Amino acid sequence: MRVIFNESLKAVADDLDRMACNVRDAIRGAGKALLDQDIDAAQAVIDHDAEVDALSTSIVDKCVELLARQNPVATDLRVIVSTMRLSITFERMGDLARHIAEAARRTYPESPLPADAVDTFRRMQQFLEMTADRLVQMLADRDTHVADQIIRDDDQLDELHLKTMRMAQSEDFVGTNQQLIDVVLIGRFMERLGDHAVSAARRVVFIVSGFDPSKEPARDEGTDID
Amino acid sequence: MRVIFNESLKAVADDLDRMACNVRDAIRGAGKALLDQDIDAAQAVIDHDAEVDALSTSIVDKCVELLARQNPVATDLRVIVSTMRLSITFERMGDLARHIAEAARRTYPESPLPADAVDTFRRMQQFLEMTADRLVQMLADRDTHVADQIIRDDDQLDELHLKTMRMAQSEDFVGTNQQLIDVVLIGRFMERLGDHAVSAARRVVFIVSGFDPSKEPARDEGTDID
Repeated sequence: MRVIFNESLKAVADDLDRMACNVRDAIRGAGKALLDQDIDAAQAVIDHDAEVDALSTSIVDKCVELLARQNPVATDLRVIVSTMRLSITFERMGDLARHIAEAARRTYPESPLPADAVDTFRRMQQFLEMTADRLVQMLADRDTHVADQIIRDDDQLDELHLKTMRMAQSEDFVGTNQQLIDVVLIGRFMERLGDHAVSAARRVVFIVSGFDPSKEPARDEGTDID
Repeated sequence: MRVIFNESLKAVADDLDRMACNVRDAIRGAGKALLDQDIDAAQAVIDHDAEVDALSTSIVDKCVELLARQNPVATDLRVIVSTMRLSITFERMGDLARHIAEAARRTYPESPLPADAVDTFRRMQQFLEMTADRLVQMLADRDTHVADQIIRDDDQLDELHLKTMRMAQSEDFVGTNQQLIDVVLIGRFMERLGDHAVSAARRVVFIVSGFDPSKEPARDEGTDID
């Protein structure tokens, strides 16, 4: 069920759905760039990020206009404020996908990752693609069941991230310093994508139920040094 | 000049000032933890981060209440929306300072950094402490001149960060894998602190002038792979 108080708010909700789709495409493209050395996919993610940023700005502008004109209260107000915050979260997710694509472009036609790390990163990528699909579905349907799945499953990504960090910390690590740096930074970008998805899921729970997810323990409690 | 439309908005502005002071203290404490192996400073930053998070939540709640009750328009609306966004930025800055403090606590009584890197990190820290002082002043006075200084000078931090990344990338790097990881991640946390300060400065320019800083090119364009 989508809560709508008028056509303007519906238009903003449609923009937000579009943004979620853009983020899903960016995550998929970043994965192709990283794991299949797909330079076209890398470039597309990098090129499209400006659109994601512009869409976020446009959504915030429209929300401010709605606040000015409609004097929304209760649920409508909650939806508008949450929509602004979701668009900012999605913008940041677009940035993170772009960082991964940029790392892949930099080392093309080689992978930025050492061979031993590829399998774990592929599993992280599979997880993020599942999460991105869930994000799109959650937004389109305001589905708290899907939101709960995103929140619940994020530990799996943290586990995989921890595995990449253990590999990087090991003095048996096989690879150049640059590869070690990429394992650490790309791993962190992917883990942060998961954290932002959790943050978005909590916000959708808030929109639908009125329970404020920001009063839950913070998600940014990674399993390594952060 | 501070734009106030009533006492409630003034109370929120005071909270935001307090949050800026908390962030400044967290940045200073993280620096003491990182560079002077001050375990008490590290623990204080880690313990106080929950307060910073709670203050951010409280500010957003109060802003939503103001939006519901006051139906603000024009400048007042801009101030409230920007205040919400500033509080979210400050919360994230608190997280980043905590990450640095946690890295220092993990390796105590040793430094997480290899000896060769300490000097550059000390310069980054000095820069961030200057920036944190400016943030507090900018907020208290809604001073766009100080905001402009923050925006203009961030390149200096990016330069220092690039220097740490070049050190890490070099096959002549002297240190363990874990030290290399810490150089990369702590460097990134510090660079991101600078980016968030720039974002906050742009938002204050927006509050005062009405010029939307989010339509400027994004700041998250690091000089290394991100």
